[in-house]
Amino acid sequence: MPDARTIAAPQPVSPIESPADLAGRYRSVRGMTERLCGPLEPEDCVVQSMPDASPVKWHLAHTTWFFEQFVLAAAVPGYRPFRPEFGFLFNSYYDAVGERHPRPRRGLLTRPTLREVLEYRAAIDRAMGDLRETGASGEFAPVIEIGLHHEQQHQELLLTDVKHLFAQNPLRPAYAPDRLVPDEQAPRATGRALPHTWIEFKGGVRAIGHAGPGFAYDNESPRHEALLRPFRLASRPVTCGEYLAFIDDGGYARPELWLFDGWDAVRGAGWQAPLYWERGEAGGWRIFTLAGTRDLDPREPVCHVSFYEADAFARWAGARLPTETEWEIAAADAPIAGNFVEDERYRPVPTAGPASAASPQQLFGDCWEWTASPYTAYPGYRAPAGALGEYNGKFMCNQMVLRGGSCATSQTHIRATYRNFFHPPARWQFSGIRLALDE
Amino acid sequence: MPDARTIAAPQPVSPIESPADLAGRYRSVRGMTERLCGPLEPEDCVVQSMPDASPVKWHLAHTTWFFEQFVLAAAVPGYRPFRPEFGFLFNSYYDAVGERHPRPRRGLLTRPTLREVLEYRAAIDRAMGDLRETGASGEFAPVIEIGLHHEQQHQELLLTDVKHLFAQNPLRPAYAPDRLVPDEQAPRATGRALPHTWIEFKGGVRAIGHAGPGFAYDNESPRHEALLRPFRLASRPVTCGEYLAFIDDGGYARPELWLFDGWDAVRGAGWQAPLYWERGEAGGWRIFTLAGTRDLDPREPVCHVSFYEADAFARWAGARLPTETEWEIAAADAPIAGNFVEDERYRPVPTAGPASAASPQQLFGDCWEWTASPYTAYPGYRAPAGALGEYNGKFMCNQMVLRGGSCATSQTHIRATYRNFFHPPARWQFSGIRLALDE
Amino acid sequence: MPDARTIAAPQPVSPIESPADLAGRYRSVRGMTERLCGPLEPEDCVVQSMPDASPVKWHLAHTTWFFEQFVLAAAVPGYRPFRPEFGFLFNSYYDAVGERHPRPRRGLLTRPTLREVLEYRAAIDRAMGDLRETGASGEFAPVIEIGLHHEQQHQELLLTDVKHLFAQNPLRPAYAPDRLVPDEQAPRATGRALPHTWIEFKGGVRAIGHAGPGFAYDNESPRHEALLRPFRLASRPVTCGEYLAFIDDGGYARPELWLFDGWDAVRGAGWQAPLYWERGEAGGWRIFTLAGTRDLDPREPVCHVSFYEADAFARWAGARLPTETEWEIAAADAPIAGNFVEDERYRPVPTAGPASAASPQQLFGDCWEWTASPYTAYPGYRAPAGALGEYNGKFMCNQMVLRGGSCATSQTHIRATYRNFFHPPARWQFSGIRLALDE
Amino acid sequence: MPDARTIAAPQPVSPIESPADLAGRYRSVRGMTERLCGPLEPEDCVVQSMPDASPVKWHLAHTTWFFEQFVLAAAVPGYRPFRPEFGFLFNSYYDAVGERHPRPRRGLLTRPTLREVLEYRAAIDRAMGDLRETGASGEFAPVIEIGLHHEQQHQELLLTDVKHLFAQNPLRPAYAPDRLVPDEQAPRATGRALPHTWIEFKGGVRAIGHAGPGFAYDNESPRHEALLRPFRLASRPVTCGEYLAFIDDGGYARPELWLFDGWDAVRGAGWQAPLYWERGEAGGWRIFTLAGTRDLDPREPVCHVSFYEADAFARWAGARLPTETEWEIAAADAPIAGNFVEDERYRPVPTAGPASAASPQQLFGDCWEWTASPYTAYPGYRAPAGALGEYNGKFMCNQMVLRGGSCATSQTHIRATYRNFFHPPARWQFSGIRLALDE
Repeated sequence: MPDARTIAAPQPVSPIESPADLAGRYRSVRGMTERLCGPLEPEDCVVQSMPDASPVKWHLAHTTWFFEQFVLAAAVPGYRPFRPEFGFLFNSYYDAVGERHPRPRRGLLTRPTLREVLEYRAAIDRAMGDLRETGASGEFAPVIEIGLHHEQQHQELLLTDVKHLFAQNPLRPAYAPDRLVPDEQAPRATGRALPHTWIEFKGGVRAIGHAGPGFAYDNESPRHEALLRPFRLASRPVTCGEYLAFIDDGGYARPELWLFDGWDAVRGAGWQAPLYWERGEAGGWRIFTLAGTRDLDPREPVCHVSFYEADAFARWAGARLPTETEWEIAAADAPIAGNFVEDERYRPVPTAGPASAASPQQLFGDCWEWTASPYTAYPGYRAPAGALGEYNGKFMCNQMVLRGGSCATSQTHIRATYRNFFHPPARWQFSGIRLALDE
Repeated sequence: MPDARTIAAPQPVSPIESPADLAGRYRSVRGMTERLCGPLEPEDCVVQSMPDASPVKWHLAHTTWFFEQFVLAAAVPGYRPFRPEFGFLFNSYYDAVGERHPRPRRGLLTRPTLREVLEYRAAIDRAMGDLRETGASGEFAPVIEIGLHHEQQHQELLLTDVKHLFAQNPLRPAYAPDRLVPDEQAPRATGRALPHTWIEFKGGVRAIGHAGPGFAYDNESPRHEALLRPFRLASRPVTCGEYLAFIDDGGYARPELWLFDGWDAVRGAGWQAPLYWERGEAGGWRIFTLAGTRDLDPREPVCHVSFYEADAFARWAGARLPTETEWEIAAADAPIAGNFVEDERYRPVPTAGPASAASPQQLFGDCWEWTASPYTAYPGYRAPAGALGEYNGKFMCNQMVLRGGSCATSQTHIRATYRNFFHPPARWQFSGIRLALDE
Repeated sequence: MPDARTIAAPQPVSPIESPADLAGRYRSVRGMTERLCGPLEPEDCVVQSMPDASPVKWHLAHTTWFFEQFVLAAAVPGYRPFRPEFGFLFNSYYDAVGERHPRPRRGLLTRPTLREVLEYRAAIDRAMGDLRETGASGEFAPVIEIGLHHEQQHQELLLTDVKHLFAQNPLRPAYAPDRLVPDEQAPRATGRALPHTWIEFKGGVRAIGHAGPGFAYDNESPRHEALLRPFRLASRPVTCGEYLAFIDDGGYARPELWLFDGWDAVRGAGWQAPLYWERGEAGGWRIFTLAGTRDLDPREPVCHVSFYEADAFARWAGARLPTETEWEIAAADAPIAGNFVEDERYRPVPTAGPASAASPQQLFGDCWEWTASPYTAYPGYRAPAGALGEYNGKFMCNQMVLRGGSCATSQTHIRATYRNFFHPPARWQFSGIRLALDE
Repeated sequence: MPDARTIAAPQPVSPIESPADLAGRYRSVRGMTERLCGPLEPEDCVVQSMPDASPVKWHLAHTTWFFEQFVLAAAVPGYRPFRPEFGFLFNSYYDAVGERHPRPRRGLLTRPTLREVLEYRAAIDRAMGDLRETGASGEFAPVIEIGLHHEQQHQELLLTDVKHLFAQNPLRPAYAPDRLVPDEQAPRATGRALPHTWIEFKGGVRAIGHAGPGFAYDNESPRHEALLRPFRLASRPVTCGEYLAFIDDGGYARPELWLFDGWDAVRGAGWQAPLYWERGEAGGWRIFTLAGTRDLDPREPVCHVSFYEADAFARWAGARLPTETEWEIAAADAPIAGNFVEDERYRPVPTAGPASAASPQQLFGDCWEWTASPYTAYPGYRAPAGALGEYNGKFMCNQMVLRGGSCATSQTHIRATYRNFFHPPARWQFSGIRLALDE
């Protein structure tokens, strides 16, 4: 559920950036959202292609309403809403602040128009600037920081929702031109993916979770000890070529490889391959991307698979998915580098190397990685008070944790402790697979 | 089904207008379609509010595709389509000319944009003009005439679909400013509707159906004899005030007033009043119109009722609905005058008089009138050959005939023999009620 | 809708049988119902295989409740119901006599058991006998007569509902042993169906409908004049062999042959053949019957087709379905003879001859014949007062008229004016096809 | 999913009972199944009241097919199945042994009849006895033992499915007479439930899971260490009276108390109270039980709540649900005593005391207790080979663990390590609530 996101109350331990930093960050994040809309027409911004997705216009307005509702309305005495009915239209799920427009009907709102929503954004940005100049925004810095992370999440959803929308159109429109990966990074010459190796990790009582400094959502807390068994983690994500072998081996036709609910999903939805894979006219597989439809590159990390597919692939491969504890321990010291939204590729790219890695590659960026862990509260977790915290734990059921961010995530948004979560059948996010093994 | 319309092959007896007349009519009808889009934003033109409705953009393109497919492609040697994929996207239901995009997914097509569709219209209009100058369009005059009537039908659907769309928006946008009816026409001073009287008609063997001259759809043919019993027809349509009495008498809670399928619809959909009726804050009824929401005027003809509601109202009133034969006999000599789309009111208005009518008033315009007649073939009806005629009879099942046109119909489109048809539960057309009685 | 039957108030002109006749008829009809249950196990009598069908036990109880409610409760002072809650459980659709158990949940009632329902039947039969002896039943003779016709309708539904139930079971249980048609009747030797010829009928103003003497439902009245055009009617019903030619000619894959709603049904339900046709292991067609599964006999009248299939077949054959007026005129003088439930074959049989018929064969029995006529009120029809008449017209929408009875109809129940009706997609009745042509 | 049960391959460490013990146990368990059917009529045994439930007849046959398929067919050379088609009809979900009848259609099988199924049971029991006499059953002892535990699970489902079926019937039939709890056990005199206290448990690294001796399912293995934090567990389950306070405090109308998916379920299904709670005529709550409908006893443990309701209640109460690790540690030394199916009460009873408990009461029997733990594999879990083990892990997604057994569980079937699991919205099991707190 894209906007069913944990919007955390401020962490007491989280150091607040300086006012100037925050102002710069505000401009940067808000501007990024609008830049992502650059290639879109007004028509592209109004349609909702499925109940799980939201129109672009809604993302633009909802992220703005967040600042209006939780900062301006609280900070400015006698604040008059830009338009009172926007609270009803652009609230996502905060029951504490009133009724809201039903999610599956977001695509019926042709008014306000894109132009009016952009005016709304500009007006709120001006008011936020005014607030800054009064110095009154200091105490709201934690909320503003949350609002910016919240907006970054919606940036990713905006891209995955547009991708889903464009995929419904037989014209298969492209969102952006394709940006090839430089030859020196990807071993295109050989046409072979980097070999796959296993990295070993020791067991023991280890601490995971966030404990500052820096921002984190409340679902990453409290930092706590977990009992870990020795395990091995794959050096890179599963590639399209490897996934193709699963398909060619009858992976979608063998019930013994699937969870019961997964097999139901396969038959119910008629899955034969990951989302956005199509048979080309010459018979080969092609993949629809935000840069249009292109031939499948077997070296590329596979993505747009559901948890069920990730789990079935792992079983077929004689391995398993890592738990989120294992993933976090493996990523604890990894640099936050990779293929992010700032790279403007909007698709995963082959692992660049080195050929024999001592540590897992591509943990961050490219694809979210499904873990074997249901999304639940960390021991001692307690929902913060107030509207922002009212529902922090309300999504902790029926969803699975993903880790590491994707090619649609901002590099400034992700971290080793970050917990993303989606329902097991969800496929429209950039969600891929990394294998693990017991020692 | 809005575009499930009988697109008739030319009637042999239909006299073709002069080329100049036809050219003028082409410009007029095509221009009218675009003029109707004047108040709309690009966002308004892309969304589909329910499977029965189509996006405005689709109406604009489909009516254009009609001329491209059935005139240009046939008349111009080596014709190259404007964009070949438009045939797939904008075909409605002509299986003979190829596959088509599924109707319920029309609202997912954000591309081509409104601007591109308007360019498409302009290009086809130019090509149609070129064809005219070559003189080659003469033999296609019958098809062009059909195309223009087809486009007029879509003009009405465009308005009813926009009305439905806007009604989904809590902001309740207005399509056009309200145009009041002049006082001298409507007896507003008294606040009373014109009295209701019964006009008597004799029985006997009478001819109905179209037999030229002038254009008609094939479902109006052949003209044939029908056995009529003496009957009485109400002098005017049922008003909102009268319908309110039905509601206040528990009309929606008394199963004995309803057809079995109608009672199912009432309970299934929770109907309590006609479509677009809302309770105002002060408790009174308000009606959403294309000019925004206004207080209910009890003198106004009731509309946006289903066949089931029309039938139940008639039973409650101790009367019945007229058959289409009765309606046509009663209208045979009536002037085609009334409140049409050209009046730009987009809502029915109270009957203007005279107070004691010798003939039924408001047969044309204001509201379509549900009849008691299922939509079936006239005796001897035979579907014309070819793609245009391929499906002439394919809608002759499960629908009921409506007569007379509405405030969204063009005065140049309607006639006494005209047969409209919708499924019994449909409510989003301007569909109202006129009562009849056995002698 | 099986029990959505027009239960008519007594016709004033209907001569009442003598008390002794009526008593004999009561015993005969009631006994027949129980005899039909002979081959069934208690388990067979409780399950509801689809919302349109009812459990056998429900048929047994509902027909009994009819006599208890409309005769005993009205005729016996201080009558105490057998079990008061049975009124709620076994009322079908008479809103005037109270709430009722929802139809799709009839199959959840494992209690009362079959044994208890048979005790209920016996108790009511005794009370009806007692009433007769007091002579008090005289004034209720018309209602009793309706009750017996009502029960005969449910006998047919009981058989078609059991057939549908057994067809869901992979074991394909047989209800009864197969009774072959004597060789001298069916031209098995040749393996050819009787040739198909056209019988001509003149046009003119003709009277149809019931005008006594004898029993009829109110929907057969008033007898009235209708304007008829000259037409031709097929000498026999369409055979399985002829229908097979339609299938083999791609009938189920050619949209141009189908009504729009029919084509939707074909694709939605995946129809490839009539209901109960199955591919045998050797590739040939087999048909599931109440006597088990047997090879298709190409000479046998086709049945278990929907109106949509009948209509498409007729279009494919270059013909049309008859109107109900045409059918009734053609049958007006035909003897009520044929293959009825009393013959215990429970399947249609080939036309026996003579080879060149001067009049249509097999109009009665074997298969109901779909007509081209929507089920509507006859001119001047007026629903009788009271609970029995309350809903006489309530099914006059969305259904098509069938004529002539079937192999599951009693010979004592059918007549030329009898109007049966079902929704166009219904296939579980013994519904077949007879063709007509304009002169 | 009732028969979506982990059917484990034999545990290597599990000591096999002596042949004589096993034979006695076979007779006892098989006989118990049939004894549970004693109060049922043939009609009660065929209907399926919802897709999650199965007909009694199906339970009877499926448990028998288990022995035929996994013992007789494997042990007896040249074994001829009792009826070959039963494999198709009565397989539940073992894809390795062939196709199966779709679960939601189990209720359409009126044949084989109950009598035939009982004959099937008798025949297989005889064949199992013959096998025992040949001494050949020794090596199959582990499979037989599984088969008996499997059958005990179906005994519980049989009761909960019958309860659900009877609840659909407006007559509210009773399965068994009510057996009151002796006064000396339940403090009826005071009408007060036993006070609720908190039992403290220490944290640390603790072992959970099964490690023999004795039977266990494979999902209880391997026994492994878990890191536990100090916690407190309620001394008894939540009572109906306490749950009533939650209802009266608006529990079902306050979204902030619910998980997001839970709030969806509340609104979608219109939940206002636990399943089987009804408003009595006098306004008070009544509860439908297998002994008929009775007044709510506020001292009785609440049951028939979903995980969502258990979770919302805990939040309202300022507490939480225990994890399965906490539950198992708390129960490790508790005697397996309580109110089980052998007590023939078929409903939970009030806690009997002692008033100030040093350890949690009623951990076993009465109600299954929802835990906060999603059902996942224990670390190192590996599915056994072969058909019985093929799907051991296939249900480890989207379900929550319940512990402790219920009033419909056999005392010989339950243990501290036993993991039951159902989907969060499921309510038709005897599922209740026990609260926990962080230290």
